[in-house]
Amino acid sequence: MSSQKSLIYGRNPVLEALQHDKPLDRILMHHQITGDTIGDILRLAKSKNIPIVRVPIEKLNSMVRGVHQGIVAFGAVVAYTPIQDVISHLYDQGKVPLFLLLDGITDVRNTGAIIRSAVCCGIDAILFSEKNAAPLHEDMVKTSAGAMMQVTFCREKSMQSILETLKLNGIKIISSDLKAEKSLLDIQFNTPCCIVMGSEDKGITRETLKYCDETFRIPMKGNFDSLNVSVAAGIICFEAMKQRG
Amino acid sequence: MSSQKSLIYGRNPVLEALQHDKPLDRILMHHQITGDTIGDILRLAKSKNIPIVRVPIEKLNSMVRGVHQGIVAFGAVVAYTPIQDVISHLYDQGKVPLFLLLDGITDVRNTGAIIRSAVCCGIDAILFSEKNAAPLHEDMVKTSAGAMMQVTFCREKSMQSILETLKLNGIKIISSDLKAEKSLLDIQFNTPCCIVMGSEDKGITRETLKYCDETFRIPMKGNFDSLNVSVAAGIICFEAMKQRG
Repeated sequence: MSSQKSLIYGRNPVLEALQHDKPLDRILMHHQITGDTIGDILRLAKSKNIPIVRVPIEKLNSMVRGVHQGIVAFGAVVAYTPIQDVISHLYDQGKVPLFLLLDGITDVRNTGAIIRSAVCCGIDAILFSEKNAAPLHEDMVKTSAGAMMQVTFCREKSMQSILETLKLNGIKIISSDLKAEKSLLDIQFNTPCCIVMGSEDKGITRETLKYCDETFRIPMKGNFDSLNVSVAAGIICFEAMKQRG
Repeated sequence: MSSQKSLIYGRNPVLEALQHDKPLDRILMHHQITGDTIGDILRLAKSKNIPIVRVPIEKLNSMVRGVHQGIVAFGAVVAYTPIQDVISHLYDQGKVPLFLLLDGITDVRNTGAIIRSAVCCGIDAILFSEKNAAPLHEDMVKTSAGAMMQVTFCREKSMQSILETLKLNGIKIISSDLKAEKSLLDIQFNTPCCIVMGSEDKGITRETLKYCDETFRIPMKGNFDSLNVSVAAGIICFEAMKQRG
């Protein structure tokens, strides 16, 4: 849970935060809340891809000692950039995009380590969907050793919208898969591409797998093939970086 | 702290555990304890390199509800093998040893991830000294995803004794160091060698650095060079494995 520092509560404060483009991680709202301000908040939040979560009043009471008026927002430590903007900007600069897409990695420490590797290896942006990622709040600044402030994050409504945007922009989608025949060492990272990392327990989802242009396995010695997900991501990003020189 | 399951307490139970070669992580003993059995326990523990920690009686009372007679031992989940035995055995088999030495890595999750990488990349043994390593108790089985049961561990009294044994046996000692000029990609891993990993905050100690035959940096893009220690270990072990084919 985010620390108290990053909480914004009350109708007008939340509305103002939205109007002033303050990065918000998510907005918690009493499920029966109504009113003009709420209508504005819902419209603005939707346009900015900020998730709204409906909760019982007790939840809000337990989070805030002051008067919350049925609404509490979590400030985000980073601003999210729309994925299409990032892609267009990279292509405009003549760059070859290299992205990392997190599919269901919710552990804060693993995510922090992955963000560090992404920065070290020159990943252009880290992508995830609203529902299945670790929150980027202040604790993450620590687990990422500050790396979080040095990389671009794109958060979209669904994995499907991310994957379709990548496809539309000619970005190859590749993923590690324990059952793949191809080795990591045979993958070309010199074209525009996005590396997908699935969760430690479930791997990438079947829906995501359908979008993958290529899958590979990380070659291993012996009968054990269970790397920690942040270590696997680090090895893959390092290989991509080496190829790109 | 180890779970209750792995505690052995009382003079005779601890003595018997030692006599039957049950792996012990460490023995906690009241600082005024005496007697014949205690003399036997001290001798056996010393011969097996099991650390003795002297503690006040309150510490033991807080750990055990039953009658502990001033002595409590933590069962180890793995057995430790003397480093010289491992080296001799590998040379006898015509193998080229590849070790990983942990110098001050005390975080259980990082250690668990490192053990997984070591097993995946065919590291022959993980070495550490009694004083500056995460304990290998039952929690570690989980963080290592079971990898802990598949690798050889050597625990010696001091870093110095480990490093001198390596030197005496012609094993090259190499370490990553942010200030090194040489790149990881220029290191030869085909000879007998030991990779040293220092702690996340302090790196390898100055004493250990004196023993290093080579140091290297992990090449990075951009201005950020702070990989998580388990990710760095994974990248290094993977490079070593690739070179060894």
